[in-house]
Amino acid sequence: MSQVKTLALVTGGSRGFGVAICEQLAKKVENIDFSLYARSQQGLESTEKLIKQIKPSANVNLFVADFGDIASLQSVWSQSLKKVNFSEYQRVWLFNNHGSLGPITNVSEYVFNSFLIFIDMDQDHLSNFKEIESEITLNVTSVFVTSSLFLKEIKSVSTPIETSVINTSSLAAIQPFDTWGIYCVGKAAREMLLSVITAECKDTPNIKTLNWSPGAMGTDMNKEILVKTKDEGSKQFWEDMIKNNKLVDPNFSAGKMIDLLISNTYTSAAHIDVADA
Amino acid sequence: MSQVKTLALVTGGSRGFGVAICEQLAKKVENIDFSLYARSQQGLESTEKLIKQIKPSANVNLFVADFGDIASLQSVWSQSLKKVNFSEYQRVWLFNNHGSLGPITNVSEYVFNSFLIFIDMDQDHLSNFKEIESEITLNVTSVFVTSSLFLKEIKSVSTPIETSVINTSSLAAIQPFDTWGIYCVGKAAREMLLSVITAECKDTPNIKTLNWSPGAMGTDMNKEILVKTKDEGSKQFWEDMIKNNKLVDPNFSAGKMIDLLISNTYTSAAHIDVADA
Repeated sequence: MSQVKTLALVTGGSRGFGVAICEQLAKKVENIDFSLYARSQQGLESTEKLIKQIKPSANVNLFVADFGDIASLQSVWSQSLKKVNFSEYQRVWLFNNHGSLGPITNVSEYVFNSFLIFIDMDQDHLSNFKEIESEITLNVTSVFVTSSLFLKEIKSVSTPIETSVINTSSLAAIQPFDTWGIYCVGKAAREMLLSVITAECKDTPNIKTLNWSPGAMGTDMNKEILVKTKDEGSKQFWEDMIKNNKLVDPNFSAGKMIDLLISNTYTSAAHIDVADA
Repeated sequence: MSQVKTLALVTGGSRGFGVAICEQLAKKVENIDFSLYARSQQGLESTEKLIKQIKPSANVNLFVADFGDIASLQSVWSQSLKKVNFSEYQRVWLFNNHGSLGPITNVSEYVFNSFLIFIDMDQDHLSNFKEIESEITLNVTSVFVTSSLFLKEIKSVSTPIETSVINTSSLAAIQPFDTWGIYCVGKAAREMLLSVITAECKDTPNIKTLNWSPGAMGTDMNKEILVKTKDEGSKQFWEDMIKNNKLVDPNFSAGKMIDLLISNTYTSAAHIDVADA
């Protein structure tokens, strides 16, 4: 596979699992270029630096993108795809890795009555459902934008490219957890989107999808969980995970995922957990 | 159960399956009041008239609500709940029945290049992804608004009310269909939301959820499918369903669902298809 030239598009590429994906790609894939997307230019530059240290030959393009703003995302994403000559590549992977945790609270407690806010100042209740709408946009609608425009480009190239649309998923996509409503719904929605894409690619088997459940990792999101979780049992669970060193290393999880993508042995639209890979 | 007083909140109550739900509730439930929600005042009044013909004693409240506009929905929905004295009722059912079909096209073809629009004028491609965002808001985020504020009210009543949050679902919630991306994702997301609500109600077993898959029905949405479907195989399938009289009668499906709710024998968060009820 040494002549294969690979392009990786990584969203949420400035932090956490996104950085680990980039690090592992740079280490495991010989001839590879990158398009990285995140809100923070500084974060993106830091990831670029890490990639270049491992693989100086990689072309790395950075795009500041807000996945919660659909009009702006559509514009940035379209322009970023136009900068790529897809026919240069034999293998293209889109990592839909961006996402947010959302409020960690019961569905019945998303918005409190105004008088209760004063009683309950330490809780981070939302002021209104426009914030829930933004979370859904960021976690679900944005993945329609990236996947749709990406697939349109891939299908327009005359030679079939070995393509995968990868979703950073979670056990929460297939199992409900109380107080994790937005997160569970977002992940379930993303998995169904990939299943539909796979159904639509029955005549183009070079295009596959993969839902990667990376495990409970030690990332910034994990710290956010600890701050947001109100339930004492859950808090204890996560604190024990840290204390007993049971959190999955993001680089270990990303490495397993890249191995699977390179081997190309997964069934399209599969949900695969790091524990089973 | 003759002393039981029931309240039914029905969204999408002006058309199709929503009207059938109201008709069957009026026929099968002795002592019942209604809160109906839809965009069309005229459609709501028509449903009210139908209910009153069957059950003159029912109190019917109508609320014009746009489920695609979250700020407005939050306001209308909150006000509508304030008008209800929940402690009057021993049984309350929220039917999250509203929804839209969305574009019926491959994910890769949601938005065409501008020059292609002129070649392909007969297809209903979207001009941009803001329209996809509105579809997701209407089909997913709005269900957070209705369910969240509803459950907050239910939980604030001192005597536990026999409560169910019902979702008009579809086979598309659990099985991907090509060209049905928005519809499948919306229905999968709604089912996960109900699963999370059920997980959060483990200590309040009086609150249950139900995903009702009503079957392929002869409603306005069915006509919309025939107009929108581009794929000849799918078009033939739906035309044959009509020709061979195989479409499910919305009143038959709604009747089966109400029987199940009255018997209260379903497992909370179950996905139940009319064919299996």
